[in-house]
Amino acid sequence: MKALVYEEYAPDDNFSKILKIEEIPIPIPKSHEVVFKVKMAGLNHDDIWGMRGKPIQIPMPHISGTDAAGEVVAIGDDVTTIKIRDRVVSHGNLSCRVCIACTEGREYDCRNRKIWGFQTGPLWGGFCEYAHLPEVNVLKIPDNISFENAAAASMTMTTSWHMLVGRAKIRPGQTVLIMGGGSGMGTFGIQIAKLYDCDVITTASQSKLEDCLKLGADFAVDHRQDDWHKQVYAISKDLAKKKQTGPGIDVIFEHIGGSHWNKELALLKYGSTLVTTGATTGYDVNTDLRHIFFKGVSILGSTQGTRAELESGMFWVSKGKLRPIIDSIYAFENAVEAHCKMLKGNLFGKILMKPS
Amino acid sequence: MKALVYEEYAPDDNFSKILKIEEIPIPIPKSHEVVFKVKMAGLNHDDIWGMRGKPIQIPMPHISGTDAAGEVVAIGDDVTTIKIRDRVVSHGNLSCRVCIACTEGREYDCRNRKIWGFQTGPLWGGFCEYAHLPEVNVLKIPDNISFENAAAASMTMTTSWHMLVGRAKIRPGQTVLIMGGGSGMGTFGIQIAKLYDCDVITTASQSKLEDCLKLGADFAVDHRQDDWHKQVYAISKDLAKKKQTGPGIDVIFEHIGGSHWNKELALLKYGSTLVTTGATTGYDVNTDLRHIFFKGVSILGSTQGTRAELESGMFWVSKGKLRPIIDSIYAFENAVEAHCKMLKGNLFGKILMKPS
Amino acid sequence: MKALVYEEYAPDDNFSKILKIEEIPIPIPKSHEVVFKVKMAGLNHDDIWGMRGKPIQIPMPHISGTDAAGEVVAIGDDVTTIKIRDRVVSHGNLSCRVCIACTEGREYDCRNRKIWGFQTGPLWGGFCEYAHLPEVNVLKIPDNISFENAAAASMTMTTSWHMLVGRAKIRPGQTVLIMGGGSGMGTFGIQIAKLYDCDVITTASQSKLEDCLKLGADFAVDHRQDDWHKQVYAISKDLAKKKQTGPGIDVIFEHIGGSHWNKELALLKYGSTLVTTGATTGYDVNTDLRHIFFKGVSILGSTQGTRAELESGMFWVSKGKLRPIIDSIYAFENAVEAHCKMLKGNLFGKILMKPS
Amino acid sequence: MKALVYEEYAPDDNFSKILKIEEIPIPIPKSHEVVFKVKMAGLNHDDIWGMRGKPIQIPMPHISGTDAAGEVVAIGDDVTTIKIRDRVVSHGNLSCRVCIACTEGREYDCRNRKIWGFQTGPLWGGFCEYAHLPEVNVLKIPDNISFENAAAASMTMTTSWHMLVGRAKIRPGQTVLIMGGGSGMGTFGIQIAKLYDCDVITTASQSKLEDCLKLGADFAVDHRQDDWHKQVYAISKDLAKKKQTGPGIDVIFEHIGGSHWNKELALLKYGSTLVTTGATTGYDVNTDLRHIFFKGVSILGSTQGTRAELESGMFWVSKGKLRPIIDSIYAFENAVEAHCKMLKGNLFGKILMKPS
Repeated sequence: MKALVYEEYAPDDNFSKILKIEEIPIPIPKSHEVVFKVKMAGLNHDDIWGMRGKPIQIPMPHISGTDAAGEVVAIGDDVTTIKIRDRVVSHGNLSCRVCIACTEGREYDCRNRKIWGFQTGPLWGGFCEYAHLPEVNVLKIPDNISFENAAAASMTMTTSWHMLVGRAKIRPGQTVLIMGGGSGMGTFGIQIAKLYDCDVITTASQSKLEDCLKLGADFAVDHRQDDWHKQVYAISKDLAKKKQTGPGIDVIFEHIGGSHWNKELALLKYGSTLVTTGATTGYDVNTDLRHIFFKGVSILGSTQGTRAELESGMFWVSKGKLRPIIDSIYAFENAVEAHCKMLKGNLFGKILMKPS
Repeated sequence: MKALVYEEYAPDDNFSKILKIEEIPIPIPKSHEVVFKVKMAGLNHDDIWGMRGKPIQIPMPHISGTDAAGEVVAIGDDVTTIKIRDRVVSHGNLSCRVCIACTEGREYDCRNRKIWGFQTGPLWGGFCEYAHLPEVNVLKIPDNISFENAAAASMTMTTSWHMLVGRAKIRPGQTVLIMGGGSGMGTFGIQIAKLYDCDVITTASQSKLEDCLKLGADFAVDHRQDDWHKQVYAISKDLAKKKQTGPGIDVIFEHIGGSHWNKELALLKYGSTLVTTGATTGYDVNTDLRHIFFKGVSILGSTQGTRAELESGMFWVSKGKLRPIIDSIYAFENAVEAHCKMLKGNLFGKILMKPS
Repeated sequence: MKALVYEEYAPDDNFSKILKIEEIPIPIPKSHEVVFKVKMAGLNHDDIWGMRGKPIQIPMPHISGTDAAGEVVAIGDDVTTIKIRDRVVSHGNLSCRVCIACTEGREYDCRNRKIWGFQTGPLWGGFCEYAHLPEVNVLKIPDNISFENAAAASMTMTTSWHMLVGRAKIRPGQTVLIMGGGSGMGTFGIQIAKLYDCDVITTASQSKLEDCLKLGADFAVDHRQDDWHKQVYAISKDLAKKKQTGPGIDVIFEHIGGSHWNKELALLKYGSTLVTTGATTGYDVNTDLRHIFFKGVSILGSTQGTRAELESGMFWVSKGKLRPIIDSIYAFENAVEAHCKMLKGNLFGKILMKPS
Repeated sequence: MKALVYEEYAPDDNFSKILKIEEIPIPIPKSHEVVFKVKMAGLNHDDIWGMRGKPIQIPMPHISGTDAAGEVVAIGDDVTTIKIRDRVVSHGNLSCRVCIACTEGREYDCRNRKIWGFQTGPLWGGFCEYAHLPEVNVLKIPDNISFENAAAASMTMTTSWHMLVGRAKIRPGQTVLIMGGGSGMGTFGIQIAKLYDCDVITTASQSKLEDCLKLGADFAVDHRQDDWHKQVYAISKDLAKKKQTGPGIDVIFEHIGGSHWNKELALLKYGSTLVTTGATTGYDVNTDLRHIFFKGVSILGSTQGTRAELESGMFWVSKGKLRPIIDSIYAFENAVEAHCKMLKGNLFGKILMKPS
């Protein structure tokens, strides 16, 4: 089969030097594994980290691809819940499934967790014609969801769902601030918070504000403006009047970090929550602890999400309440172009790739 | 290898007619399985249900045995956490490990859950020389725990732990009533509640009261006396004075059912909890709903427990804070005698069996 | 001022013999109390229980009325959150506000809790021209809510909210069964479950099915038909297919009891919840404990609700997402007629009364 | 009566210039208030902040004193749970008791909360002969607890209890790190974590290590040594072996801040918790967000605690499981000396004062 492979790093982001379409054997499933023909795959930032070899070294030769959807062509002897011809999507968070964290339902806390297509290999990821995964790492796609939408949703939706539902435990009526509402994560963050009947304020760059409102955000603020936090505060004050409470935010969905951090902390109400993953503009931040202890706030780190959360999210995609946003679709042959587009960041939603 | 096998039911409890020691092949592990040499196995009531063919039919020919401990002699290709010579104990609750309940950490809510040695087969249980189980269904035994204690703890301790910690969520300072403190479940119930610094009242038959107090119960009441509930209430009243609260029980550990049920409900405080499993003296009970809604109580059904809970409990066995109670040990050859003793009920703690 | 007073019981439900409009002094607020001119009051079943003197004796002479809305005319010296002319509605659950249950936010578990207009007196309830209550037992009504809607919502909405949100902790995507969807409680139950994006099945008598669907229920079943539970099960099975789970109900909202009880238990899924209050068709029920422990279900008693829950519910009334249903409005002078209508039960929503 | 009063700030910590014993009227209780003769009062750092006028201005003339215990001499008309001659201790966290946070049991999230003796006045605190408080802000002292122990426990124990039990929700078997185990807060932190059967590592200065071990800590590390965190890590690694888990800390009890912050974050396990209040060595800290999101940790701010938590803690004092540590006792006349001692910090446990 054809696969998108590289065997050395490109720390200068010159991906064209390393990415090649190669012919490799079609995988044979182990007893608890499933092999599916990839119809659509999704790009994630860990593809870039892998090619750079930073922040961690990865197995070589390498196939990237953490999101993939397709049709099952082979199953192992002990597989019981999936059969040939099933339409499936990957759950890219691999964990041991045995330790106390895994068996308590906290696979994200497993010390041996790995991200498929990033930490796995050699030659084990979604950017190929036939992908293989353990049974527990694929999910049957409801009939009315396309391969495109399934691939666009998988990792990103699961991560956002875990942040808001699994960690922050949002409740109807809360005022929620979605930082970076125009990103892949942000587009799901907005929609999940609306599904839970929250009042949603989002931040984005000027050109994406309109799209964020169309996705359901009640208010959108340009976070490139110095006083974005003052604008958010003013909106929260108006909302608070109707709720007979004080101004400020109940839940902040944060994946930006950097210079926004302390402004976000200042926006939090007494007893409120900030949930954070990644830190795209810088992870070394200054923190005024008084914001945290005086107001009794909870700062919750979040990473990945569970298979059960992917399944919950996918249910709402099938009900039409969550809508994966697709920026563009490329053939594997045009992977360099696709990754460069993601790197530049001038997009709305997910970039997908497929076998030609 | 030798195994304790039967091929037909004994609805009249004439077990000697059906139980035979037979020679069958030593199992070969599947890719994710472990095979261990059984050093000690534990009896459970489901052994009896199996031989009776009631309340459900079971696979034939049948090997019973839900608890077993021993030494690993072979592992499958994909096993990563267990190695040959490891000392292990069974976690007898098999579940699919894929569905939303399993991946949320609620394996007991899996619709495909099965009890090993009861619902499994043909010829798949612990009463044999070499047992096999999926990797996730065995647990490494801490060095200072004997095979006897591991086998005596496994299913019973997990069930009791799930009731009190997983379901009722006991907290230090609560007044806890352990019904049937002299049973296998009760002996763990008493000790778990004391580990959590609760005030523990237990009921038992006259001859076992002293043993219950030795196990740590603060008070023991003879539940064959008609006014046992009045005695419990009086004790709770004394305890309440010191806590500046009202009389009554915070958490009832119930596995009796029958005529005790409504008396138990009457003992519950406002906002309290009754957790129930089994119903050894009758499952068809009369319920006065006013006890439930007026006092805002929670009646929590409970069945089995998780691998994570077995692991938590085993940690406390190794710390010496939970002590498995062993009534007696038989050879597989004397299985009829062992099961008859369990049937009569005149015992304190678990009955074990081992290969001769 | 005028008040609707009685001084003896009417165990034969001959209310006209005892109910009188009398002249009594306008109350003067204690330091932490508020006095408001009653614009609208709501009828509840405890009005009837009071007049019957069953199941408990009540203070005499008696003024009933657990729900009242009006305009503040006087406040005590220590009142800080309410001022004269504020529009307020009663929170009819009085509790000590000092004990451990109250200060933990569980006022419903307070051993000294009382229902205003039922257990209070002499002469202390809402069926009068000027009502008085502690500051903590009145809530400011949002501007866009009428006195009618506020009075119709108060106790009933709070009780339903506590059942579904406080106790059963409903989550989006669950399948919820609202028993008696045409009752006051049921009309809120349906709407609250829809607010939380649940799939809602309700039962009602034939004539109310249409109205229940208009309120938002997704399915409505006639619970006078013998096989109502089979119809509910069939619906749950269809819903389950889309969720890739098994059939059955996640949360049952129960206030009926009697012969429906065991059928409800049989409908529950593994790990599901039944929340119960009252038991209008009988509180002495037969229970098959196997339904409870084998499936690991939670039976949660519920009574009343908190001031915080009233406030949460009222927010959604002001947002238009919860709509109080008013059956009819009477003058205090026609109280006998109003109570007889409630007794017959041929109504949809709340009956209100007001000073003439 | 005599009271310890000041009318201007002493930003230079020259307390002798401002503190005076003055004669003021004995308070008369409002309808919901209690007046008690002060037998013993406790010093807290907010006494110092008040005299400095930093970080906030306070009401003048001022009486400090957030902890006081004594005998009731007068009660208001509406007081129901306290009577004259009752022995009581203050709960120094005043809140509105009406808002949604208060009625949900989160008085610490009340936007109008105030600390008695710090933010209250003029002339309202515990350093006087007769103190007055709302009924809900005093607690009856169990018979076997002295005024000394009650005053030493009140605010400090409540704050520590809220951190570990209310916020971090410690569970038996966890590895807990108590920073500053020799401080008032730390002495309770150690004991509460042991009450919950945790493995406790504490840090302190060299001279206090022995005392921390006597209080029950399993390990004590000198936090003035540069590699204190490496020592803690090594201990956690040993503990982890017995638990079959990875090294690191489950719960950190933090009130230090400053340069220790990032070292503490590095010690946290996957899925673990840091609970923080105050920040005695600096609140402006550098945070590496990767520690937070990659490991999925929870950083929980905490302030004060609830009346219910004070009551829970006091129960364990009466059972002898929590032991207030008293450094020294002064007469009000020697308040300057007492406060200077606290300022220097060379103490173990609480400093108390009493009327001469």
